[in-house]
Amino acid sequence: MPEAGSWGFKASSRQPATSTRRLMAIVEYDGTDYAGFQVQRGERTIQGEIERALAAATQEEIRIIGAGRTDAGVHARGQVIAFKTNWRHSLEDLQRALNALLPKDIAIRELALAPENFHPRFSAVSREYRYSIWNKPVRSPLACRFAYHYPWPLDVSLMNEACSHLIGTHDFRSFGSAPKEGSSTVRTVYRARCTREDGFVFVELVANAFLRRMVRRIVGGLLRVGSGELTPDDFREIMMAKDPALIKVTVPAKGLCLIKVNYD
Amino acid sequence: MPEAGSWGFKASSRQPATSTRRLMAIVEYDGTDYAGFQVQRGERTIQGEIERALAAATQEEIRIIGAGRTDAGVHARGQVIAFKTNWRHSLEDLQRALNALLPKDIAIRELALAPENFHPRFSAVSREYRYSIWNKPVRSPLACRFAYHYPWPLDVSLMNEACSHLIGTHDFRSFGSAPKEGSSTVRTVYRARCTREDGFVFVELVANAFLRRMVRRIVGGLLRVGSGELTPDDFREIMMAKDPALIKVTVPAKGLCLIKVNYD
Repeated sequence: MPEAGSWGFKASSRQPATSTRRLMAIVEYDGTDYAGFQVQRGERTIQGEIERALAAATQEEIRIIGAGRTDAGVHARGQVIAFKTNWRHSLEDLQRALNALLPKDIAIRELALAPENFHPRFSAVSREYRYSIWNKPVRSPLACRFAYHYPWPLDVSLMNEACSHLIGTHDFRSFGSAPKEGSSTVRTVYRARCTREDGFVFVELVANAFLRRMVRRIVGGLLRVGSGELTPDDFREIMMAKDPALIKVTVPAKGLCLIKVNYD
Repeated sequence: MPEAGSWGFKASSRQPATSTRRLMAIVEYDGTDYAGFQVQRGERTIQGEIERALAAATQEEIRIIGAGRTDAGVHARGQVIAFKTNWRHSLEDLQRALNALLPKDIAIRELALAPENFHPRFSAVSREYRYSIWNKPVRSPLACRFAYHYPWPLDVSLMNEACSHLIGTHDFRSFGSAPKEGSSTVRTVYRARCTREDGFVFVELVANAFLRRMVRRIVGGLLRVGSGELTPDDFREIMMAKDPALIKVTVPAKGLCLIKVNYD
């Protein structure tokens, strides 16, 4: 029987309350071969792979919570997860074990003790997404895994004019659906910006939270502006109309990446 | 029978000499799933796929010549090829047909009439290669397809000091083998530079031509310098010794990309 004050390694199972720790991690993944973040029966998911690696490393059955439920094919550089564990060794050891156990398209970038009452989704104050467009006439084999090929000319300054209408607190019903039926579709966009760089056009969006498909539908609308099909004012009117039937274009998942989740 | 001065579309097969054109193309590929550029029996190669697409598009049996025979797993942003064809329609049509027929990890970026006596290998005055190193403790799922993961600290300024010894005309036997046994291993390096950028270290090398494995063995040596195992002077001595046994490290193909081939 362990003595009081003995080190973690000797703590007995009779002290479960004090030995359980809540951890948070930053996760990067190539979402190409996954049916999305969230566990679904019979599908390969990011959550499923991480929980499998956690079970193998800790011999515990652990459920994780993610900051954002990225769709099938969406990538992440900075997804945030949290979970509880009785792991008694160092966090470095757990991170190393998980990265050895996870498939090569998922990695735990950082692992740390979570602040008290931390919840990856509810504690988040904003999320940053980036959508990558390969904007050259010919497709790019080196870019095609992480960028959508749009071969026609794009006027990035018009796209930025449309972006300016997104900034602020609006009802974004035209661009996405609420996570639960009947819940609010009002969100606050802090940053919306398009930049051209070496054949790519990148769309960066930062908001307190996003509706389902919101980034991909906004980018769909921005492409219609950049190609001259809509004016920035048309784009604004579509937003104001709160009608999801108007936007028409949802760009493919592979260009989308969850870059960062911000906490206070 | 076609009239003199009739357009290309009407040229008959009785004028084979005048209707054959020599074309050049810039080719980009993700080399991950290929056994290298050059055709090998029973292997999937870049050359094989391009010749297959050319045959399907033109109904001719066409052999292509490439500027560089990249190894298995090596990528290219700017490989240059040349070939002869009786194709009579526009080059835009041929490029479009080839890009539709080629697998998604190979693309014809540009297609043009070749200058007289053009040979992609013998006419080239220099080649530019880039080697990408992911230099963070944790592997990166988003970078791992095109970068080698080196998790330990690297001193880029020491690596650049070693690079400075490469510049100029030297016998590079320590870093690679001649394409044909007994032929010269003297090459001229015009640029050799390491840069750190967002978690990556990039090694750029420009030379009139490269020996087999030369870039990957130079980078192997540079990593030994960057980690402190060798000094820049040791690196220079290895180069001067003309002994291929000394360098010891050949880095993996996946970090290597043929960026550009330069012509006068």
